[in-house]
Amino acid sequence: MKVFIEPPTDQWAELLARPALQADDLGARVRPIIEAVRQEGDAALQRFNRQFDSYEGALQIEEKAINEAPQKIEPTLWQALRQAYANIRAFHEAQKEEPKIIETMPGVRCWRRSVGIERVGIYIPGGTAPLFSTVLMLGVPAQIAGCSEVVLCTPATATGKVHPAILAAASLCGIGKVFAVGGAQAIAAMAYGTATIPKVDKVFGPGNQYVTAAKQMLAAEGVIAIDLPAGPSEVAVWADEHAPAAFLAADLLSQAEHGSDSQVILVCDTEAKINEVLQAIETQLSHLPRAHIAREALRHSRAFVMPHAEQALRLLNSYAPEHLIVARRDAARYVERITNAGSVFLGYYTPESAGDYASGTNHTLPTNGFARMYSGVSLDSFVKKITFQEITAEGLQQLGATVCHMAAAEGLDAHKLAVEVRLDALSPNPQL
Amino acid sequence: MKVFIEPPTDQWAELLARPALQADDLGARVRPIIEAVRQEGDAALQRFNRQFDSYEGALQIEEKAINEAPQKIEPTLWQALRQAYANIRAFHEAQKEEPKIIETMPGVRCWRRSVGIERVGIYIPGGTAPLFSTVLMLGVPAQIAGCSEVVLCTPATATGKVHPAILAAASLCGIGKVFAVGGAQAIAAMAYGTATIPKVDKVFGPGNQYVTAAKQMLAAEGVIAIDLPAGPSEVAVWADEHAPAAFLAADLLSQAEHGSDSQVILVCDTEAKINEVLQAIETQLSHLPRAHIAREALRHSRAFVMPHAEQALRLLNSYAPEHLIVARRDAARYVERITNAGSVFLGYYTPESAGDYASGTNHTLPTNGFARMYSGVSLDSFVKKITFQEITAEGLQQLGATVCHMAAAEGLDAHKLAVEVRLDALSPNPQL
Repeated sequence: MKVFIEPPTDQWAELLARPALQADDLGARVRPIIEAVRQEGDAALQRFNRQFDSYEGALQIEEKAINEAPQKIEPTLWQALRQAYANIRAFHEAQKEEPKIIETMPGVRCWRRSVGIERVGIYIPGGTAPLFSTVLMLGVPAQIAGCSEVVLCTPATATGKVHPAILAAASLCGIGKVFAVGGAQAIAAMAYGTATIPKVDKVFGPGNQYVTAAKQMLAAEGVIAIDLPAGPSEVAVWADEHAPAAFLAADLLSQAEHGSDSQVILVCDTEAKINEVLQAIETQLSHLPRAHIAREALRHSRAFVMPHAEQALRLLNSYAPEHLIVARRDAARYVERITNAGSVFLGYYTPESAGDYASGTNHTLPTNGFARMYSGVSLDSFVKKITFQEITAEGLQQLGATVCHMAAAEGLDAHKLAVEVRLDALSPNPQL
Repeated sequence: MKVFIEPPTDQWAELLARPALQADDLGARVRPIIEAVRQEGDAALQRFNRQFDSYEGALQIEEKAINEAPQKIEPTLWQALRQAYANIRAFHEAQKEEPKIIETMPGVRCWRRSVGIERVGIYIPGGTAPLFSTVLMLGVPAQIAGCSEVVLCTPATATGKVHPAILAAASLCGIGKVFAVGGAQAIAAMAYGTATIPKVDKVFGPGNQYVTAAKQMLAAEGVIAIDLPAGPSEVAVWADEHAPAAFLAADLLSQAEHGSDSQVILVCDTEAKINEVLQAIETQLSHLPRAHIAREALRHSRAFVMPHAEQALRLLNSYAPEHLIVARRDAARYVERITNAGSVFLGYYTPESAGDYASGTNHTLPTNGFARMYSGVSLDSFVKKITFQEITAEGLQQLGATVCHMAAAEGLDAHKLAVEVRLDALSPNPQL
């Protein structure tokens, strides 16, 4: 981890640059997979399952397996899942929006209603960690939104199983349709539908470069909407001199262990604190099974000495981190000045992992600087907000002239006519 | 306009198909424009201005011209703009969300704050109609959101001018940076920034196929976010037997006059009503300057006789119209059963043009069936919703075990460690 002491602002862009993404021609590799699924449906999925996951079994996981999954995991884990579910549910329930009728003029009433997206798909990757926490993060808001069809795809392991914790989390969220399909082929299956897997309108969830390329391509073509553009995970930690170095080191490592392409940024008031943290990282690394991954990630990570809060905030906002830990005694002071971040963790006892799993906030967040213009996943991501209006005859008499003047000036006469025929019908001597 | 009487559901997809978009290789034509702007900046913009718009003047419109624009338009139009502004502002102000602190467990406090996207760009096309109404629809929520930099690009006319109504609308919204640049080059300029035009993070607004291709390409590459995927405008009108045919005809025509690729759908309880409407359309067309455009649009439009409300609603939800006019006496009854639509107009005296211009709702809406999974533009489109959490030592003691069990089961030990080092520090005999 390289250390920089108050670098001049014109170097920030370079110092805060994310590790370059592989610019492989992923499209050329993913396109044939998508096409095969679109044209052959289940047959293609079965072929890819054999080829990529050595899995020969049924595409759909039996509902019985989902219902029984809670008994297949450790009771303490089940209890933890239920607690996390309750917290995530409480936080996302509060994002519900009741229609508020605004009478913009007498007789002109406008409002909007949130309606769940009918059909949504959740992708949960296989790989080194069974991400059942992501099932909760996506399944809970889908459930609250009232999405009527929720489909979950996740690859079967080599032994032909989907991890029971993934199924247990699905059962908590009322997801009954789980399919043992992974990779770009799973995204294509949910986008186009097959005989077995229902077509959905929006696809959520993380994945490898093929998965994210498939999501991006199908979204660009308008076949599906997606949750967020993809990018490697990242955290920025901003600490004062009192923040215990061991806390900061563990926070940085919990990001770094995600993948060798993760990035962590440490900003401290003093160089001494950074050195303490670097030492604590070394100590902790020696006990961590995923140390090799974390070391890779640390290689392209950066530490900054920024003694002035004002400058530190500017740096952090310009980085726009997915996660921002403000490990400062005076953390609350800065809430209003954090303008670009996915999720913010305030104070010494608020590790990112609390939000990753169980405090209630969502962990599907904008990476790669996208926090400048995207929000993380929330209940909003699972609904459409449809606007409604109802205008009375009197209301149109109030509003009509405004519409007619504007329509005429834009040269859209039928727009004007739609008001005029109505006002005419209300007049004592209709002409039109 | 072809008429179908209660078509069987298995024909709906075909009958409701949108006119196929031109599948030109737009990318190959737009890419060099984007690259030129990225590499050459203002020089490329000036070249394209000469080439495409025969415009040789300055890129930036003087602030004086913006400030004086209100005096350059008809007083009645200025009054109309101010009324529309007030209504749009009232409706969008009500979309503000105050942070709500949710204590998911004792000592675990989570909330989210809406923060304006710092830099946004608005594109307003030139062409047959000066779309100053769109300036209001995008400028007002940008202003409410507190976006600190709002950039507007619009092509200069052949006479080297930007329409004063566009500038007047910009002045109402406090937009001081207006540039006379159009087309894909304007989108590229806002995405990458040039010496004159500031880089923005999200680009809004309609445009021709080159503009929308540039938006889509730059969004797919993660350079900018965009408002919505593009598609031709459309309306569905659902009328009962009492709805005056002239009202319905004018509503259909006000959509059809937008462009030859617009689509209108009419759903009535009886064939007699459809015939009345078709006749009224003919009568009205003879008076409309844009009749040639509307006739083109009507050619690929459809009318359906659907005597059963239940079936009609299913058909309309499966079409997922951008605009849905429910010209029925009992319109209010159906509000809760409309699940896929951009914006809904209830009753006989609520023409779409009211919402297009001045009632208060936004007119930037999901087309092309995207109402299944996208919302129209709202205040939400101009903000990020950043989540925050603050956990006390006691809160972490409550929540910690849940996080640790889940992290361990996902094989992410540093995540667990980040909690453990903190709980350890709180214990009477710290070990770590």
